[in-house]
Amino acid sequence: MTVLNQSVEGFRSISPAEFFYRNRQMAGFGNPTQSVYSAVRELVENSLDACEDAQRIPQIRIAIDNQSSDILSIKVADNGSGLPYQHVPEAFGRVLYGSKYDQKQKRGTFGLGVTMAVLYGQITTDSSVVVHTQNSSGPGRVYSLLIDVEENMPIIESEREQVRSDDGTTVTIKLRGDLKRARERVVEYIRLTTIASPHAVIELDFGGSEMIKVGGWSKRVPEVPIPSKPHPRSADLEILRRLITKSPSKKLHDFLVDSFQQVGSRTASRFLKFLGLDSSARIESLSRADISRLSTSLQRFDGFGRPDSRCLSPVGEEAFLLSVRSLFSPSWILYSKQKPSEWQGNPFFAEGVIALGSKFPNVDTPTLYRFTNKVPLLYDANDDVMTKIMRRLNWKRYGFSGPLPVALFMHFGSTKVPYRAAGKQSLAHMIEIETAVTGLIRTLGRALRKQAGRRDQSRRDARKMREFSEMFNIIAKYGPALAEAEPPSSTAHMVKTLFEVNTDV
Amino acid sequence: MTVLNQSVEGFRSISPAEFFYRNRQMAGFGNPTQSVYSAVRELVENSLDACEDAQRIPQIRIAIDNQSSDILSIKVADNGSGLPYQHVPEAFGRVLYGSKYDQKQKRGTFGLGVTMAVLYGQITTDSSVVVHTQNSSGPGRVYSLLIDVEENMPIIESEREQVRSDDGTTVTIKLRGDLKRARERVVEYIRLTTIASPHAVIELDFGGSEMIKVGGWSKRVPEVPIPSKPHPRSADLEILRRLITKSPSKKLHDFLVDSFQQVGSRTASRFLKFLGLDSSARIESLSRADISRLSTSLQRFDGFGRPDSRCLSPVGEEAFLLSVRSLFSPSWILYSKQKPSEWQGNPFFAEGVIALGSKFPNVDTPTLYRFTNKVPLLYDANDDVMTKIMRRLNWKRYGFSGPLPVALFMHFGSTKVPYRAAGKQSLAHMIEIETAVTGLIRTLGRALRKQAGRRDQSRRDARKMREFSEMFNIIAKYGPALAEAEPPSSTAHMVKTLFEVNTDV
Repeated sequence: MTVLNQSVEGFRSISPAEFFYRNRQMAGFGNPTQSVYSAVRELVENSLDACEDAQRIPQIRIAIDNQSSDILSIKVADNGSGLPYQHVPEAFGRVLYGSKYDQKQKRGTFGLGVTMAVLYGQITTDSSVVVHTQNSSGPGRVYSLLIDVEENMPIIESEREQVRSDDGTTVTIKLRGDLKRARERVVEYIRLTTIASPHAVIELDFGGSEMIKVGGWSKRVPEVPIPSKPHPRSADLEILRRLITKSPSKKLHDFLVDSFQQVGSRTASRFLKFLGLDSSARIESLSRADISRLSTSLQRFDGFGRPDSRCLSPVGEEAFLLSVRSLFSPSWILYSKQKPSEWQGNPFFAEGVIALGSKFPNVDTPTLYRFTNKVPLLYDANDDVMTKIMRRLNWKRYGFSGPLPVALFMHFGSTKVPYRAAGKQSLAHMIEIETAVTGLIRTLGRALRKQAGRRDQSRRDARKMREFSEMFNIIAKYGPALAEAEPPSSTAHMVKTLFEVNTDV
Repeated sequence: MTVLNQSVEGFRSISPAEFFYRNRQMAGFGNPTQSVYSAVRELVENSLDACEDAQRIPQIRIAIDNQSSDILSIKVADNGSGLPYQHVPEAFGRVLYGSKYDQKQKRGTFGLGVTMAVLYGQITTDSSVVVHTQNSSGPGRVYSLLIDVEENMPIIESEREQVRSDDGTTVTIKLRGDLKRARERVVEYIRLTTIASPHAVIELDFGGSEMIKVGGWSKRVPEVPIPSKPHPRSADLEILRRLITKSPSKKLHDFLVDSFQQVGSRTASRFLKFLGLDSSARIESLSRADISRLSTSLQRFDGFGRPDSRCLSPVGEEAFLLSVRSLFSPSWILYSKQKPSEWQGNPFFAEGVIALGSKFPNVDTPTLYRFTNKVPLLYDANDDVMTKIMRRLNWKRYGFSGPLPVALFMHFGSTKVPYRAAGKQSLAHMIEIETAVTGLIRTLGRALRKQAGRRDQSRRDARKMREFSEMFNIIAKYGPALAEAEPPSSTAHMVKTLFEVNTDV
């Protein structure tokens, strides 16, 4: 093993900041186009999460200025809860540092994205990030920060007090970017963001040359999801060992009830029987083999309920329909949702909207819009499990006799989203997710088929009506003449009455 | 920003081991099928690198045993150089620890893969990895190791001396896996590995039930690539700052010559003129703004030569043709190579083979086999830049008038491969790489068109010859009769002679 050959350069450890600096394309910062989009996305995600926690209608202002041919300044301001001051330097200057590691659905997850934007700015323009934040604890502060990549630690250039008119955070990053090519992506990202967060109002200002304001479709602030205990199905050996360390002396029965969701006293007893252990067994007496068996059994026992979905936050039927209608004015639209389920013990849901309208491309399969935890995904669609399932289906069976202007909006939400890469652009293949997404797309597909059938039926009916109407006019003209009677003044009403029975089929 | 909200669970840092434990799908360990493949791949990669450094013909033995329905033992033994003993625990028990961070082409890069296999084994089967290694320094040692995920440090369960018959390393990992579904992938991986490493001999033993031996197509051990200095185009601010720290007091001119490849004294002087600085400028007197301008200019100056390709290791025409011929017996085959180039200053090459033969699927576009740094890529093909370029081309223009049994073997090699994710399955989009790969595929495509034209031509010629031959026979029969002469005993030779002129066109 060379990694491992002593004749070569010595062995050493690199920091996670160094790893992602070297492999920044994995985190969405591979080229000057995607980097603009990624920086905006990471900042907006954080702003939306902050407003959600503060239970406010997000008012987010984005300003992107071209400072020279390829140097941009990106500024994102929000009215969120502001940051606890002591954590600002590490939150922006340290990779894998954050507060989002608890078990509930949120947009950000890794404690990686914003720091990557800062790092990319630093290595391409030699600029520090400027963070102006104010929380309820007192007057705001402004930080100017860089990153020590090798050590994965922030470097504080300056720090001072400065009052803001309101609580919230404003972040300014200078970076090398290709705004001309990124512009369309950024606009699309902002627009689609308001599909999944219909209450958010987002302003996007391109250096005064163009100003876009979007969102505010709904006035309702969504409920904050509640962090949950882990589901027993998620208890791999690592999780189990950590839980045991937290409460080392306890009856196994009580340990199960206290540590996991969906485990009441009765379920715990039934599970212990399944495991073949006594209800009085204590965790400190478990051998390593017992713990291993416990983990396997927790993952296999089928007596645990579906996971608690209060840690999840779907868009919901009303809001989802409202936002798609607001942005795309479809002529027909339908929402559906799968029951919450779990993948490797992580609760998730899949919800979606199918819509027909002239603003969608008129093609042979639906145009797919992907969302995870209320964030639209714009890159790496081809290997995404949602795309694969969509393409696998035979859309001729779902009403596509020819091209149709149909769009499919798929939203996957979970306490843990299995992204294929740190750039969070694409959903990995997990069997439970595949099942749910397939079920959802089929349901939406069947509704489309019905609707397409109705469209076809009403077109056929309209044609029949026209033909019948013509003949009926002839009969109405010559019939009375033959019978030497008065012709009716108009046949239109009679034809319509006759046909209205059928057009509703 | 919530990541950042003080009302939520406190802020904290997680180790890179914790990050990849939580997001193991990013590193190829998302499900029990891919995990088997990934574990085998990571171990084999390391073995091949170790043999390459030792300049030996790799003899790699893989044994995969089903220990119960879903628990597997994977054992990979090589005849490489063995490991320096003091580094064994961290090499297997610490994420982002390795010796492959220098500037030359090699299979492994991240110091991540093998540790992920160990980690996956540990959390699914509670087993430690067993490493038996022996290097030239003395008798071998056996280590039994686990990982402290939260701390990202190895736990040494046991360590003892045990002599091996030869230098090399044997690694045994127990993990939960779906061998039934992974089997085909593993076999394909091993076979394709010998395409890019034709001198390697790999044995694959499925618990005695099936034994596959493949490779050894060539007896030539490839030259070891030579680590190179960075190319000036790669000098972003981070790299530049590090280089300056290493030699803080120097004339800028000498600093450039010493730190970078392709910068001789004359080039350095010309560059300094381009930069607008005096040749006598010293690096300790450079302001931060100067350094920033230096970085930008290094990336833009077009007077630096193409990167040194001695740090690269292509398969090469002879070996590439040999291995494809050995595995697929094509009826026609052609090799091509683009000149080495660089992406963001990282040297790379693209080489490839196109082949026609009955062992390839008979379809409308070529079947694509992807390789990076001599490793075949089997997953996540759809978003790979090679696949995208291949699909973008109109293959009807390259001889595909109908389906053809054509395969395209594409090999991308670089000191730094821009993988889309830590699982190293797919190449990200970089403009310089796209240009080279497009050029290569087009070259191979044009050769195919010529060949397809020849095939069509010779088919047409064969048909003409048949028809002419029939008529000629009639003439040969009745002509002499009319002339009252003897008919020739056979016309076949005359026809062939007549047509041979044409079939060579």
